[in-house]
Amino acid sequence: MSELRKDPVTGRWVIISSERGKRPSDFGIQKVKSKEGFCPFDPGNEDKTPPEILAFRQEGSLRNGPGWRLRVVPNKFPALRVEGEINREGVGLYDKVSGIGAHEVIIETPNHQDSLTTLAPKQFEEVLWAYRARMLDLRKDIRLRYAMLFKNHGEAAGATLEHSHSQLIALPIVPHLVMEEMAGARDYYSYKERCIFCDIIRQEIQQGDRVVLEHAEFISVAPFASFSPFEAWILPKRHGSFFEESQVFEIQSLSWIFQETLKRLEKALNFPPYNFTLHTTPFNERNLEYYHWHFEIIPKLTKFAGFEWGSGFFINPTPPEEAAKFLRELAP
Amino acid sequence: MSELRKDPVTGRWVIISSERGKRPSDFGIQKVKSKEGFCPFDPGNEDKTPPEILAFRQEGSLRNGPGWRLRVVPNKFPALRVEGEINREGVGLYDKVSGIGAHEVIIETPNHQDSLTTLAPKQFEEVLWAYRARMLDLRKDIRLRYAMLFKNHGEAAGATLEHSHSQLIALPIVPHLVMEEMAGARDYYSYKERCIFCDIIRQEIQQGDRVVLEHAEFISVAPFASFSPFEAWILPKRHGSFFEESQVFEIQSLSWIFQETLKRLEKALNFPPYNFTLHTTPFNERNLEYYHWHFEIIPKLTKFAGFEWGSGFFINPTPPEEAAKFLRELAP
Repeated sequence: MSELRKDPVTGRWVIISSERGKRPSDFGIQKVKSKEGFCPFDPGNEDKTPPEILAFRQEGSLRNGPGWRLRVVPNKFPALRVEGEINREGVGLYDKVSGIGAHEVIIETPNHQDSLTTLAPKQFEEVLWAYRARMLDLRKDIRLRYAMLFKNHGEAAGATLEHSHSQLIALPIVPHLVMEEMAGARDYYSYKERCIFCDIIRQEIQQGDRVVLEHAEFISVAPFASFSPFEAWILPKRHGSFFEESQVFEIQSLSWIFQETLKRLEKALNFPPYNFTLHTTPFNERNLEYYHWHFEIIPKLTKFAGFEWGSGFFINPTPPEEAAKFLRELAP
Repeated sequence: MSELRKDPVTGRWVIISSERGKRPSDFGIQKVKSKEGFCPFDPGNEDKTPPEILAFRQEGSLRNGPGWRLRVVPNKFPALRVEGEINREGVGLYDKVSGIGAHEVIIETPNHQDSLTTLAPKQFEEVLWAYRARMLDLRKDIRLRYAMLFKNHGEAAGATLEHSHSQLIALPIVPHLVMEEMAGARDYYSYKERCIFCDIIRQEIQQGDRVVLEHAEFISVAPFASFSPFEAWILPKRHGSFFEESQVFEIQSLSWIFQETLKRLEKALNFPPYNFTLHTTPFNERNLEYYHWHFEIIPKLTKFAGFEWGSGFFINPTPPEEAAKFLRELAP
């Protein structure tokens, strides 16, 4: 069983996943499947994944059989497991919690060759609907405090299977970076009585030089303090603290700007590996005036090395104004 | 000129290095020199680096010529520059500071084929002396608040030149992770009136299962909440807040345990890429009861991917107790 351990100095948590237990000789073995190899996410191989939690299917097709357009399954090698009770334990000055949580995989398409940018707009939108549905379902479990939704695209960005998918890890604690972001936003709000993200959106629209795309409901920007070259954030212009409470017109608008931003990144950077993550309010909070959900997309172009490990400081060789200009001016 | 920018939400800083300014097409080009290629750090090529700041040399050899055992030079493509004044500026809700600082390279050996683990013990010790000398010198510059000393070994760990070297980036602000670590240590001290690192050392010696190596002055352990498989910390048993104030016997002891820990990691993991960083007290502090300098070594075995980006949470597939046992039992 895995466990969550807390660094006693910084208060950061880590998942020690003994079920994935790796001996020294296990490292360095690449598991990314080639297009020729067997893929457990391909249609016809439904029995090679744990039973599905959610699927969008052709009428009349059977659960855990072919005929699906999108499928959500538990991760076969989960970092955390749903079963069991949460035990919190101290060992001397150390603290740990049993590794309860959920680890799900959203298989975004039945076609092995597809990626998020080759999906038809309607299919891309269905991916967002699946995200929304899983978040709404997971937040009913009172043991869970946060669900981190993310995608690793490409081997260098951490993908271990080639078939296009995203992941969701639901946790019994609120992750450190989320708490830090929320605390920063709360401080700003208590000082200004305005949401900092709403203020960022206003300033970005006014300045214009970091805007990648804009339409009525959403904006895509290269953030002022981009950690990574060509980092892009997608924010709803209308204040909202929970992604999973988005309405139909919002999901539709988001779908367009999200896919178009990804397409432009692929065009600009010649199909880079990338990660994206959803930043949304923890489950046990109410609607918050000060926190504003958004997606962050990070192309994997630089290495996370000693300086970053030690300092938490990043060196970004491309000013976000240049990145945004480049992306903005690409023909759609 | 580069600049430091602050993320308005989290308060984290980033270096936007426009001098390294990368266009989209610049990414993906690997610059690691093969053993056959030209190396600016090889003896005879001293004119291919900026003039040396420090060198340990044969008697009678000339500055910026061959005959050195170790050489410290400014980075030719620095993230920050020493020249200029610090300007702090606000742009709407954003804050930035001009990119003043220092970026130095410690060339650890004249032999292109050597690495830290193949150096003679005396040479390894000289590397530590060079670290100490540069820290003592940089802290005289009142514009600088912190110097982050780090090593990227191997391409996957971010090294762009193969020739064995470490780096030092001195900053006009204290990095976020350092502040966070210091705040955690200060909180613990104000509650217990004991240094948390001294308590960690006591508990590790008592429990024993995470100890890699121990001798009179230093201990090397796999930390309880290791972020990364086979992560190892090296701590002085005697409380001290500044690495650069280490005495002769401390540098000598550190040299042995540090090199032996690296050797065991290389043996266990078949010469992995790795990073290490020095954690020490910021320049503008006095000796602190609550902060305890140490080195952190992180073999590069897992990917920093979407989950880690979004949450600051790491998934470590090797319990530190297993890693420590493995390293401890390796024949020296």
